[in-house]
Amino acid sequence: MERKEFRDLVSPEAATEAIESLSLEGGIDRVPLADAHGRVLVTRLDAELDVPGFDRSSMDGYALRAADTFGADEADPARLEIVGEVHAGEAPAVAVDDGQAVEISTGAVMPDGADAMVPVERTDLEDGDVLVRTGVAPGDNVMFAGADIAAGERALGPGTRITPREIGLLSALGLEEVPVRAKPRVGIISTGDELVRPGGDLDSDRGEIYDVNSYTIAAAVEEAGGEAVMYPHAGDDQAEMERVLRDAASDCDLVLSSGSTSASAVDVIYRVIEEQGELLVHGVSIKPGKPMLIGRLEGSAYVGLPGYPVSAMMVFRTFVAPAIREAAGLPEPASATITGELATQERSPQGRHRLVPIGLTTDGDGNTLVYPVDKGSGATTSLSDADGLVEVDADIDYLEAGKRVDVTLFSPETRPPKLFAVGEDDPTMNRALDRLERPRYLPIGSRPGLRRLREGVPDVAVVAGPLEREVDHELLGEWTREWGLVVPAGNPDEVTGLADLVDQPVTFVNRTTDSGLRSSLGLEVADLATARDVERHDIVGAIDGFDIGLRAHESPARRVAAGDADVALGLAETARQLSLGFVPLGDQPVRVLANPDRTDKPGVRALEGVLMDVLE
Amino acid sequence: MERKEFRDLVSPEAATEAIESLSLEGGIDRVPLADAHGRVLVTRLDAELDVPGFDRSSMDGYALRAADTFGADEADPARLEIVGEVHAGEAPAVAVDDGQAVEISTGAVMPDGADAMVPVERTDLEDGDVLVRTGVAPGDNVMFAGADIAAGERALGPGTRITPREIGLLSALGLEEVPVRAKPRVGIISTGDELVRPGGDLDSDRGEIYDVNSYTIAAAVEEAGGEAVMYPHAGDDQAEMERVLRDAASDCDLVLSSGSTSASAVDVIYRVIEEQGELLVHGVSIKPGKPMLIGRLEGSAYVGLPGYPVSAMMVFRTFVAPAIREAAGLPEPASATITGELATQERSPQGRHRLVPIGLTTDGDGNTLVYPVDKGSGATTSLSDADGLVEVDADIDYLEAGKRVDVTLFSPETRPPKLFAVGEDDPTMNRALDRLERPRYLPIGSRPGLRRLREGVPDVAVVAGPLEREVDHELLGEWTREWGLVVPAGNPDEVTGLADLVDQPVTFVNRTTDSGLRSSLGLEVADLATARDVERHDIVGAIDGFDIGLRAHESPARRVAAGDADVALGLAETARQLSLGFVPLGDQPVRVLANPDRTDKPGVRALEGVLMDVLE
Repeated sequence: MERKEFRDLVSPEAATEAIESLSLEGGIDRVPLADAHGRVLVTRLDAELDVPGFDRSSMDGYALRAADTFGADEADPARLEIVGEVHAGEAPAVAVDDGQAVEISTGAVMPDGADAMVPVERTDLEDGDVLVRTGVAPGDNVMFAGADIAAGERALGPGTRITPREIGLLSALGLEEVPVRAKPRVGIISTGDELVRPGGDLDSDRGEIYDVNSYTIAAAVEEAGGEAVMYPHAGDDQAEMERVLRDAASDCDLVLSSGSTSASAVDVIYRVIEEQGELLVHGVSIKPGKPMLIGRLEGSAYVGLPGYPVSAMMVFRTFVAPAIREAAGLPEPASATITGELATQERSPQGRHRLVPIGLTTDGDGNTLVYPVDKGSGATTSLSDADGLVEVDADIDYLEAGKRVDVTLFSPETRPPKLFAVGEDDPTMNRALDRLERPRYLPIGSRPGLRRLREGVPDVAVVAGPLEREVDHELLGEWTREWGLVVPAGNPDEVTGLADLVDQPVTFVNRTTDSGLRSSLGLEVADLATARDVERHDIVGAIDGFDIGLRAHESPARRVAAGDADVALGLAETARQLSLGFVPLGDQPVRVLANPDRTDKPGVRALEGVLMDVLE
Repeated sequence: MERKEFRDLVSPEAATEAIESLSLEGGIDRVPLADAHGRVLVTRLDAELDVPGFDRSSMDGYALRAADTFGADEADPARLEIVGEVHAGEAPAVAVDDGQAVEISTGAVMPDGADAMVPVERTDLEDGDVLVRTGVAPGDNVMFAGADIAAGERALGPGTRITPREIGLLSALGLEEVPVRAKPRVGIISTGDELVRPGGDLDSDRGEIYDVNSYTIAAAVEEAGGEAVMYPHAGDDQAEMERVLRDAASDCDLVLSSGSTSASAVDVIYRVIEEQGELLVHGVSIKPGKPMLIGRLEGSAYVGLPGYPVSAMMVFRTFVAPAIREAAGLPEPASATITGELATQERSPQGRHRLVPIGLTTDGDGNTLVYPVDKGSGATTSLSDADGLVEVDADIDYLEAGKRVDVTLFSPETRPPKLFAVGEDDPTMNRALDRLERPRYLPIGSRPGLRRLREGVPDVAVVAGPLEREVDHELLGEWTREWGLVVPAGNPDEVTGLADLVDQPVTFVNRTTDSGLRSSLGLEVADLATARDVERHDIVGAIDGFDIGLRAHESPARRVAAGDADVALGLAETARQLSLGFVPLGDQPVRVLANPDRTDKPGVRALEGVLMDVLE
């Protein structure tokens, strides 16, 4: 097995410099005004006309000569002859002379001869004349041509980000097309024979998995202000991969691939860039991200990202997103970074600069807490459980709990969940979660849930079955669930209880020891051992499959449904949902325990209320 | 002149309740995964498959039986027979028996019989066999089926906002379509005979202006998470306006119109809503926004906004945007509100709740300063000079400088400009501004610029001509510009200097007294009066047009270019640009003065550097 070794690792700073040295800029787009929102003006725009384009009445009333009103007041109004009217959108048909007035609407053109206007509220009509009960000066209540913005004035500067208010100014200038920076085109190449596009048929026996990185990175590219272009899946065919790579390079400003698990794909890309382009960086002293490639091909930039989703996202966010923003002319959103307090210590081996995926939560006082997410970077769920990353320098191997850290969020709009709960996976709890705003639930099982609650990071732990260890808590809600043995519909093996698993030649699928279901099963096993006067291991040793535990609560039952096992540990509700048979072994309590310091947190209060309602 | 009087004004709170009582929700959209970014999940999604779907090797190496490696170490490796290989994306063709190993790639399916794998780094090859130099336990380096997320597990809850990481999870689950909340459809109706869509031809003599509100509100609707639908311009034709209103109501969840300046348009809308729908609110006790209408028509909600752009934007942002966000399922962005310190006092008449448009800047320490923007709500430039609004309760008539206030930003990405400068409009300064990041320049003239600098709000004032009053400052840059009389090309009236304006029957166009050009002209007038031994007013009284001053620096010259005047006050550079003739009267200094407390502000330093370069 031959593999590319990355021996000349460059520093993260050198990698950033290399990416900055690549030009990702697109050209200029001319977009219709209606599509200009969010884009960046490429040049200065000066006004080419006066706004307004005429002397404009600011109110409804009478246009007149200011001199005719001198000295007028409530008691001694000036009487003027009304010689006509002018409405918005029409040219005045009359002019105003001494002693005359013209009725005028807001926004209408001031007639010739008039130099001021009086609002209707300060006038009365009498015998067809208007009585003006106030004096005005020349220019009063008139917006002169160009008073808002005049021809020749600088309207908007280059680099201006176009928000609704700039749309307003561009509208006022009558522009229907706006010259904006083209979004950098970013080609996304997916390689690896095992990858299938979402929506396609998956053959798990062949080890196929859905392509996670392509759509994820495409969305992140768009969030950074780029235009993502997805290239057809190239598999591991080398000629095809080279063709796709060259196509993408000639059509895009930047090409991204995410490290295929297949060494051959990486080798093809490496070879093409090295021989036909320019390889600037092969390997960065960073974890994850060591095998990052940075180079040029066909006038386009190329960056190779790691293959695991969380790693790819972190490296993209740290190195690539800033370059795309820069090319798009967009600043980092103000909300894209926050600071928080480490909820637990973070210890890692020294030696390489590290990107640590983290989750966010808040304590009882609303302060932001930061905790490392370490489900394994291969897991797509750890991508959705992570809110951002913290960078840790190579010479730091330990960050103590309570230390303030800077967090780079994966998305500018990411905010801590309103409730952070962990523990047993349970259908009733899931229904409660559906009714909460922005909850986070990690179904890590009852035992780890209790441990995490004691460590003080989550707000709430959900514990099913016997409560083995005491933790300081406030009980938010409690219910029971029926558990037992899930069997095929009709119970073909005529299983009646745990003893049959010991005595009959049936295969069993268990849960992991983290689960409350497994704890309750353990009590039943102990009872059976006592009843038979044997050791516990005599019982479990006789059950085919007892030691193999699945992590998720429906997984054993689904094995039975698939015909891969005869009996599974599970819930009555699961058996019903999957139309399977069920042999009850008992009811187990499910308790929702809150961290006593968090009981006033709005998300915890909301959960309590929803549980009351759900459990009614 | 008949007009609708709003006598039953409701409180701002009642207006908010009325809008909340209208249902703006759209239905459900099923969007392709590639378009799901930014949308809001409408329902809970459970995993329908295991991820990964098979037991998967986590590294490159050898799949084997853990029991065969017990006790193996560097010195005493276990020797296993290699019986085949399996790569990612292919089904294993062999199974593993005791004493055997299969070469396996990262991501490949674990072959039957194997229960662990050893990374290649811990092995050697010898005589075609593999030497395993470490012991492993069952499950080591294997990611079991469903370990990431298992079939039946809750994946994402209803109301989840889809960001790149959620795209990742949806990809892993193989979903190509996602059920999301439909964006609320918001119809935008533009009325008024005087309004012309940008890009159309404008007839200023008829008092036509470009329609500012339609595109501005459309962009703001999209920013709030709605889908804007622009309806064809209805003019003031009543039957046509009613038809457009009913069309929009039957097709949209919400219809917005912005108060036409034409009373008849408002009357038509009022009548249609009242007679054929339901009018909930007609008039709100708020400034601006008093004539706001809230009602229902054809099952759609209707809100009538004020006509002036800044007023329309403020009322939209305060009352309508929250309702659109709510219907779209989107939270207010974290960055959409900030707090800052009032830079100057704000005084207004008591009696109505007020929305005050404000601008933002920062002081020398980076603190956010907030200052009222009061160019007049009819001005589109005050829309682009305002960053947001501050609400002031009806019973407060005075806010002192230094008070902390909450600002609702017009856009979540709005940030204070990096440089805030005011003063004389000048071509050299404009070129310098083009090279700065996020500057704000208000060309209010030299005199008001000096005054504002003294009040301490802007960082910099640009002053042209004689410096009449001393202000504490640091001089950032200084240059001169040639000024004089702009005449038609070829100088047909043979103007040679100021005296000709007095002695010849030519019409003149002046600048306002705020401008430095006018100050320099004033000195020339004084010199001429002295030379002729007359009073100053004898000179200016003899110049046709001396007292009428235009605000913008190119405007007088453009009047000459248009044939509307014979002579204009202006710059040599302007005359050159407009291909006009020029009679020089002198050179005037232009100085850039910085607030001494702001000289370390990065934007001020940047301006100093750019000026050095521009003036080289």
